Amino acid sequence: MIVYTWWRSLAAFRVRIVQNLKGVSAEERQVDLREGKQHDPTFRAINPQGAIPALILDNGRTLVQSMAIMEYFEEAFPTPPLLPVDAVDRARVRALAQMTVADGHPLVTPRVRAYLEGELGHGEAQYMAWSRHFMGAALEAIEWHLARDAQTGMFCHGDQPTLADVCLVSQVVGFSYFGGTADAFPVVQRINAACMQIDAFQRAHPLAQPDAPKA
Amino acid sequence: MIVYTWWRSLAAFRVRIVQNLKGVSAEERQVDLREGKQHDPTFRAINPQGAIPALILDNGRTLVQSMAIMEYFEEAFPTPPLLPVDAVDRARVRALAQMTVADGHPLVTPRVRAYLEGELGHGEAQYMAWSRHFMGAALEAIEWHLARDAQTGMFCHGDQPTLADVCLVSQVVGFSYFGGTADAFPVVQRINAACMQIDAFQRAHPLAQPDAPKA
Repeated sequence: MIVYTWWRSLAAFRVRIVQNLKGVSAEERQVDLREGKQHDPTFRAINPQGAIPALILDNGRTLVQSMAIMEYFEEAFPTPPLLPVDAVDRARVRALAQMTVADGHPLVTPRVRAYLEGELGHGEAQYMAWSRHFMGAALEAIEWHLARDAQTGMFCHGDQPTLADVCLVSQVVGFSYFGGTADAFPVVQRINAACMQIDAFQRAHPLAQPDAPKA
Repeated sequence: MIVYTWWRSLAAFRVRIVQNLKGVSAEERQVDLREGKQHDPTFRAINPQGAIPALILDNGRTLVQSMAIMEYFEEAFPTPPLLPVDAVDRARVRALAQMTVADGHPLVTPRVRAYLEGELGHGEAQYMAWSRHFMGAALEAIEWHLARDAQTGMFCHGDQPTLADVCLVSQVVGFSYFGGTADAFPVVQRINAACMQIDAFQRAHPLAQPDAPKA
């Protein structure tokens, strides 16, 4: 397998955590989003949308979209499970995951920044405030659910990590990119800390990647 | 089951299509997003995020997030299947679905409009242009994949509707809300037309809902 990835991408971070938890290795190829490498014709031939992660399987088929790739790993490499058994519980975990994947993260992608700064003429400070607002709103939604649901345990759902934790950690790191901290979200903060005790999460962290800046 | 819904919501539209395809009925309660009813304390007690759809199961548990609810219906009511059997094929269908759920739709929610018009001071015309841009970009991504993948058939994946088609139809309708048409996306247009021949899709259409405007 080949995975197109980048140290700073939150979607690539999520996929790395799942790979580490399940022990799935793939050859990594870096696509530097800040340099706009996702628009290179060679990468566009792999994912015409110009987004990472993209996963090329040994049979040549290409998978895109972090949530779809994580669900693929869950089905193809079921141990350890990252979704509960019960359908209602699975829906809860997927809903928590989607609050990151479909609510927070989509508002802070390079294409959104390009539109805010290009077409709408906003500067760095306004983009940072925008990003803090929407990343914080997604974390707040996650906190509400975690704080009220009886299923919340040491992790988002019971006492083992699930896809909800994978996404939560990426959301906390993403919030920090824009100057936010999880201090206002005590359950999120507690679970994030529990996840970051786990080697699979630590090794996947953006700053632990070989192409990350050293400082 | 009780579903909190609204005629114009694209996420509620997706869930209605799945319910219709699978013959799952639920009592409908309307939450008018244009009137801001999602912020009412009574609804916030159900979904603190103030978003629809929300599904209350007969056992009292609440599900949120359209993708999580659709996956729940797929698991709890497996006939007819809306995901293929093979894990790679399932990932393809989920990826196509996520291009609507995680790429297009999140950019045109009421909270995004509120920020663009409130904090950033943009007007109706700029919001419409923003929305057309991002809804069109998501449709373009879907078109690219559909046009190049051998798995594309009468529908997005083979010759039976899947969750990818459910999401595609909501994306086309959402694009039309902002003055866009699928003319530039021939495979999307063909598949959308095929879906709209199906009663379950027709009955779920926003304009077919009892609370929709008559004109």
